[in-house]
Amino acid sequence: MIAMKIGIVGLGLIGGSLGLEFVRQGHQVWGVSRQPDTCAEAISRQAVHFASTDLGSLAAVSLEMVFVCTPIPSVLPTISQLAVRLSPRATITDVASVKAPIVDAALQIWPDFIGGHPMAGTAEQGIQAAVLGLFQDRPYVITPTASTPTIAIERLQTLVTQLGSRLVLCQPAQHDQAVAWISHLPVMISASLIAACAQSADAETLRLAQQLASSGFRDTSRVGAGNPDLGVAMAQFNRDALLKTLSHYQNSLSDLIYMIEQERWAELQQRLLQTQQDRQHFMQS
Amino acid sequence: MIAMKIGIVGLGLIGGSLGLEFVRQGHQVWGVSRQPDTCAEAISRQAVHFASTDLGSLAAVSLEMVFVCTPIPSVLPTISQLAVRLSPRATITDVASVKAPIVDAALQIWPDFIGGHPMAGTAEQGIQAAVLGLFQDRPYVITPTASTPTIAIERLQTLVTQLGSRLVLCQPAQHDQAVAWISHLPVMISASLIAACAQSADAETLRLAQQLASSGFRDTSRVGAGNPDLGVAMAQFNRDALLKTLSHYQNSLSDLIYMIEQERWAELQQRLLQTQQDRQHFMQS
Repeated sequence: MIAMKIGIVGLGLIGGSLGLEFVRQGHQVWGVSRQPDTCAEAISRQAVHFASTDLGSLAAVSLEMVFVCTPIPSVLPTISQLAVRLSPRATITDVASVKAPIVDAALQIWPDFIGGHPMAGTAEQGIQAAVLGLFQDRPYVITPTASTPTIAIERLQTLVTQLGSRLVLCQPAQHDQAVAWISHLPVMISASLIAACAQSADAETLRLAQQLASSGFRDTSRVGAGNPDLGVAMAQFNRDALLKTLSHYQNSLSDLIYMIEQERWAELQQRLLQTQQDRQHFMQS
Repeated sequence: MIAMKIGIVGLGLIGGSLGLEFVRQGHQVWGVSRQPDTCAEAISRQAVHFASTDLGSLAAVSLEMVFVCTPIPSVLPTISQLAVRLSPRATITDVASVKAPIVDAALQIWPDFIGGHPMAGTAEQGIQAAVLGLFQDRPYVITPTASTPTIAIERLQTLVTQLGSRLVLCQPAQHDQAVAWISHLPVMISASLIAACAQSADAETLRLAQQLASSGFRDTSRVGAGNPDLGVAMAQFNRDALLKTLSHYQNSLSDLIYMIEQERWAELQQRLLQTQQDRQHFMQS
């Protein structure tokens, strides 16, 4: 294995976990976080070899790969800041859960850019939550375009393979449509469940419901109580694809309500048999 | 502890798990299942002392408590059959996830009836899935009415306490409204997510979505792929309460779609902050 010099900007759950893996693999890792405490934690946890609060410090190193692991709204501003500082041989990639709006703009700023999205996470956030093995056997989407340099694809593929992830290649827009269905839509569905209960159940029923809620409610409501900033960013950056899935979802829900209103029990039975079967195709990973 | 003679009709996950607990507690347990294989399995697993495929066999025993653990549509027919056979000193209870339509009718058939609903389960079904500890620390709702005999309440309370469950007393209709919110509504929301993806995503997006689906989709879709018969029974027996929650849910979802359409990001942020806080009140159990 050829060791690379790797930069990681943003040392949260994803950035920190990438750092842990790359340090273990024998790469040299430079981390940047705005928070001095996060820098200290990243060093002490061996998620980085060097840490700095100053993005400009990366200019001093001849990096081959830089992972931008900031919140979605900061990805493009960060790439712009990196562009005036980095050695021109560096490839930049990101880990955002939306790709088209980032990839198109990023390629304008830095021609050696390749979009990425590791489909991994936990309920926790921050460098404290970073763990080895987070990406093992998980999908890692990379979205090269016609103008992506071969070297960028090769470098990222090499690192993704070392993480033990399942590499998935697709177009940025394809990625965004797929994650609208399986990631962004569930957040909105789930949040609406919590909101409907909290706002519309009468006080006595709500208190009893809170007492009785168990695994069914817990699972269905989980992603609706995730990081609000991330939820807003998903909606902002993947608005069109998300609205399309929400519209289909409304129709699907209306169908089902109609069956219940009209007491079409055989149809409802058929629908629930079908969903039981269809879900299995989503359970590969 | 005073040992009781207990009958259990329907030896699935719930009936079988109740049997395992009651046998361990030192009660005498008679089980009834239509399937000879299930009877054999229940005996060999020590979920019952005696098993029979014939409901009439319970007439020979002076039972104090009979748990009807059949699927919802069979609960009242089973109580009718028991009524012409049981010793008059027996209390009958059930474990169905709807209460008002069962309790009212059951009290007409058998005055010594008390409704119950242990809020416990696993993804599995059947006697094979029965386990000790299933009810430990879980809510067990009992729904006495003005006409429920004191002896029925006392017997069921005693047994529920021995299971290690958290006893919750409420009116049948209150129960049904609360579980519409936290159990039946999530099933319909979740099933509609699966149906929308499977029916409305184009083939290429669907294939990619299936490849990328991870814990968010898995959790949000889980209860939508549960037992279809149970899903239909919930809708049939708790139709009015469920339709009310579905209507509130549609409004809540429309609100959220409006915020995204109109790019009201501050409102969306506020909504998602609120759902994050509100969910905590449902996580007591």
